[in-house]
Amino acid sequence: MRVDVYCTPEEVRAGDLAGATAVVIDVVRATSCIVEAIANGARAVHPAVSLEEAAVLQARLNGHGDRALLCGERGGLRIDGFDLGNSPTEFTAAAVGGRRLVMTTTNGTRAFAAARHADRVLAASFFNRSAVADAVRDDDAVAIVCAGKEGRFSLDDAVCAGHIVRALLERAADPVTLADGALAVRDLAGVHGVSADMLAGTAAGQALVEVGLGADLALCARIDRHQIVPMMQDGVITAPRA
Amino acid sequence: MRVDVYCTPEEVRAGDLAGATAVVIDVVRATSCIVEAIANGARAVHPAVSLEEAAVLQARLNGHGDRALLCGERGGLRIDGFDLGNSPTEFTAAAVGGRRLVMTTTNGTRAFAAARHADRVLAASFFNRSAVADAVRDDDAVAIVCAGKEGRFSLDDAVCAGHIVRALLERAADPVTLADGALAVRDLAGVHGVSADMLAGTAAGQALVEVGLGADLALCARIDRHQIVPMMQDGVITAPRA
Repeated sequence: MRVDVYCTPEEVRAGDLAGATAVVIDVVRATSCIVEAIANGARAVHPAVSLEEAAVLQARLNGHGDRALLCGERGGLRIDGFDLGNSPTEFTAAAVGGRRLVMTTTNGTRAFAAARHADRVLAASFFNRSAVADAVRDDDAVAIVCAGKEGRFSLDDAVCAGHIVRALLERAADPVTLADGALAVRDLAGVHGVSADMLAGTAAGQALVEVGLGADLALCARIDRHQIVPMMQDGVITAPRA
Repeated sequence: MRVDVYCTPEEVRAGDLAGATAVVIDVVRATSCIVEAIANGARAVHPAVSLEEAAVLQARLNGHGDRALLCGERGGLRIDGFDLGNSPTEFTAAAVGGRRLVMTTTNGTRAFAAARHADRVLAASFFNRSAVADAVRDDDAVAIVCAGKEGRFSLDDAVCAGHIVRALLERAADPVTLADGALAVRDLAGVHGVSADMLAGTAAGQALVEVGLGADLALCARIDRHQIVPMMQDGVITAPRA
């Protein structure tokens, strides 16, 4: 097995992910929300890069059944007129059970767009670290795509990637080759444990604290809270089909 | 002082480096060669992004005095018709003393292009780690730009950046704020010492071994071999002026 880690969506070039399973990470907070939502019974999450695309998607989905919920943030805060923001605390079973969600976030949805040409595209956060490692342990190629922050390396995503790489090394039956990025995040995860304090020391965590949402960090740092691995197919993220 | 690290030239956005000193790193091997060349008496290094630009630059320089030397690589190997390749062993005082060099390499020259809007642009490798830390210790903002490998994170450059950050932390009189990338490379340098074996474990090092140039890695891993910090002004790299 070969494991590669992309520090930002911009590192992914056309063709890089062919034949690989992509694991998309945006700890603070898009993939934490997506894992939480799917675990709590949301039917699907539809990532949208822009507000305009989100509105178009919602209108299209509304034509086929129940009203879809608009979710997402700009600058960390819920978008005016949206049903939900981008805090995992909002994605309760009561709020999202049985519903379709259209989600637009600053960095997370760009990472899913970059990963879309992989054979499989999975959503990961600390919430489902071990479940993700279990899901990819028999694959030939795993490409972890970190959302980063506005095109830059983001430490929270890198540390999460590293803890997934370490969980994978414990599980993989075949020898594992780690490319440069995978070596680096493995070593960062050896230095950085998972905690609200660790997240608060990163640019993404600091930005959240600055807009008064620092309480989310303790939740985002919860490891193995869920056993589910959301999967994106044809641009739609759902629970994996049996 | 704020210290930031860009994992690739592509992470640098317009305006990011205003007011900062940029430190460009391409350990394997462009900045190792540049430090070696300037330390050995080269008058100047003119980075060129393409072979075409290199030829135009050389022709222009030849019109103003001694013939400039063409240096550089593609796929790690000396370019046909060029005077020198991209091995630090070639940049001896006998070869480059008093000469102007036009240099084109795959990743290094792109990093200098990305860094050109900084207030000062310095060239760094393991060869001049401590001298670089001395040169920037009183600056308000230091932006380390890693060349990476074809737009991807490169472990050799990140480890070098980390050892420079550590040297800087020992020297800076004012408190130092480390952005996400700087935190990460500082921690990687705590795990990875500097050796030919470390470099051989990276993608850049492996690529060099594969084309039969692995012997360069032991040289590229030499720490504090030189006390000089080459500086780029108006697109030309020279020894710093007194």
